[in-house]
Amino acid sequence: MHHQEELRVATAGRGLIDVTDAVREIVARSRVRTGLAVVYCQHTSASLLIQENADPSAARDLLDWFERLAPTGDLSYTHTAEGRDDMPAHLRSAVTRTSETIPVWNGELCTGRWQGLFLFEHREAAHTRVLVVHVHGD
Amino acid sequence: MHHQEELRVATAGRGLIDVTDAVREIVARSRVRTGLAVVYCQHTSASLLIQENADPSAARDLLDWFERLAPTGDLSYTHTAEGRDDMPAHLRSAVTRTSETIPVWNGELCTGRWQGLFLFEHREAAHTRVLVVHVHGD
Amino acid sequence: MHHQEELRVATAGRGLIDVTDAVREIVARSRVRTGLAVVYCQHTSASLLIQENADPSAARDLLDWFERLAPTGDLSYTHTAEGRDDMPAHLRSAVTRTSETIPVWNGELCTGRWQGLFLFEHREAAHTRVLVVHVHGD
Repeated sequence: MHHQEELRVATAGRGLIDVTDAVREIVARSRVRTGLAVVYCQHTSASLLIQENADPSAARDLLDWFERLAPTGDLSYTHTAEGRDDMPAHLRSAVTRTSETIPVWNGELCTGRWQGLFLFEHREAAHTRVLVVHVHGD
Repeated sequence: MHHQEELRVATAGRGLIDVTDAVREIVARSRVRTGLAVVYCQHTSASLLIQENADPSAARDLLDWFERLAPTGDLSYTHTAEGRDDMPAHLRSAVTRTSETIPVWNGELCTGRWQGLFLFEHREAAHTRVLVVHVHGD
Repeated sequence: MHHQEELRVATAGRGLIDVTDAVREIVARSRVRTGLAVVYCQHTSASLLIQENADPSAARDLLDWFERLAPTGDLSYTHTAEGRDDMPAHLRSAVTRTSETIPVWNGELCTGRWQGLFLFEHREAAHTRVLVVHVHGD
């Protein structure tokens, strides 16, 4: 069985948006009991991340760290036509993930207790992002 | 064919633990000849990495570099309730991998000659980590 | 259906080589309509990346940023027997990807409009790199 759906996510600028429940619903609709769920992000200035889902301070520190790692408006960027937040968005995407693959067991995502799957919006403006969710198995 | 097993790994604090052979044994038990093996890490303070398996100096340099990239006890972290090594563990997980997908050919993992699959323990204390290994194919 | 091919890529030293079209051709040969394409890199000093495919300035900035992140010839490296560009190659591989998984829909890769799949050569010398491309589905 191969089941595929698009998942549209509205973002409000830079931040982490929890999409775990939305992916769980797609897995339920797929009726797959044992298999894999693949979530794919169709963008190069937004990405995916599996992270701590419990404490907002962890998300805040993570955002701050990525800002230090690839600063907005760094003078060494030459790719600036789309704004001072565009090149750091590509860099932060480069070191996080374009896809995440999660086993499905007994009809459920095999995520750990403290794990959430997040869309990581790297741009400052609000965007609509498209994820492709693919579930297959028995 | 979809075959799934949990793989428990005891860590002795921060470091890389080679799990390639343990995953190979699961692939053998799955009896899949042509397909995929997915290894999934259920944690946000430990992660996965495919790296050089030959020279211990490469592993040592890698650990040192991650310590510089996201330092233990950095004063800019606010998420400190679980210890000074917790937030850097999340950051180092964020830029390595929660899952690795490796093709299986002729019943064997298609890893390159110098590649090993490692569980990357980011915490200072010993832990038992759980990996979910999913193999499917013909 | 499980279809697997090796893709050999000649590199000319450090840089990004677009392999999207080569992977598309393998997907077409697989005759899979709905499924997944997995691209796996058999090396630890070259890796994979999905990035902006349009503006060469983005690729240039990306290369410069990785050079700052894990500098060539950094004096803190002890793994230097294979050259001053070897350890940074492992580090840059560690934070990019060994495999990429892309859903296939209607016989086509589900990449976004501005996404290209690149082999990221981290060594200064030319190499022949081997990717394993696995396509499965209906």
